[in-house]
Amino acid sequence: MTVVDIRSEQAGVTDSYKNQVLFNINQECMRLSVFEGEYRWHHHPDSDELFLVVAGELQIDFEDGNRVTLTEWQSMVVPAGSVHRTRAIGRTVNITFEKQGAQTVFVESPPNQATQRTAPRPDA
Amino acid sequence: MTVVDIRSEQAGVTDSYKNQVLFNINQECMRLSVFEGEYRWHHHPDSDELFLVVAGELQIDFEDGNRVTLTEWQSMVVPAGSVHRTRAIGRTVNITFEKQGAQTVFVESPPNQATQRTAPRPDA
Repeated sequence: MTVVDIRSEQAGVTDSYKNQVLFNINQECMRLSVFEGEYRWHHHPDSDELFLVVAGELQIDFEDGNRVTLTEWQSMVVPAGSVHRTRAIGRTVNITFEKQGAQTVFVESPPNQATQRTAPRPDA
Repeated sequence: MTVVDIRSEQAGVTDSYKNQVLFNINQECMRLSVFEGEYRWHHHPDSDELFLVVAGELQIDFEDGNRVTLTEWQSMVVPAGSVHRTRAIGRTVNITFEKQGAQTVFVESPPNQATQRTAPRPDA
């Protein structure tokens, strides 16, 4: 039985992206994810996904146009099949819980996002 | 989809003991546990149990005499069937992950603890 100090663990990650399994619990796993920037639209058809922010800010966009911003010790569950996109504000560290071997299905552009207005990028 | 601010949630608990489900994730649940003092020896025959400390210090005793102390953002998994006893140092808040409806079997005194020396209580 191993004790993991999650803050020490995340402090030791120097990559701009790392997603590692910290623990298996029954048929689920707890992952530590460190990332910068924006991830692609996707969903997990066979697993709910819990997010818990350790450091930084995590934004989650949903295909209905809703956006949620989570900071340290804030948590939510994205239900199985729900199309979403995560975005780190700066360097963001979060814990996720999901089924071991959960499938990820990438989606090019959610149907309801076609008309969503987004701010232009600084280089646009 | 509900966002839970875990620190706000725990700050709102005024009882000396409260154990509530915050989220269901697949067949598992995430609980927020606030407690003081020592819990009874027990095990969960059908579920691993993950602990993640939010505030305070959590000690976990095992039947082989080992004791682990966890502080904020420290985490470990107690495997299914492993007899253990939790103890809060002061008021302790922790998150647990386990199967929904996990069974708890209480144990009067673990066999290997019979000769364990413990400090006398102040009132002993």
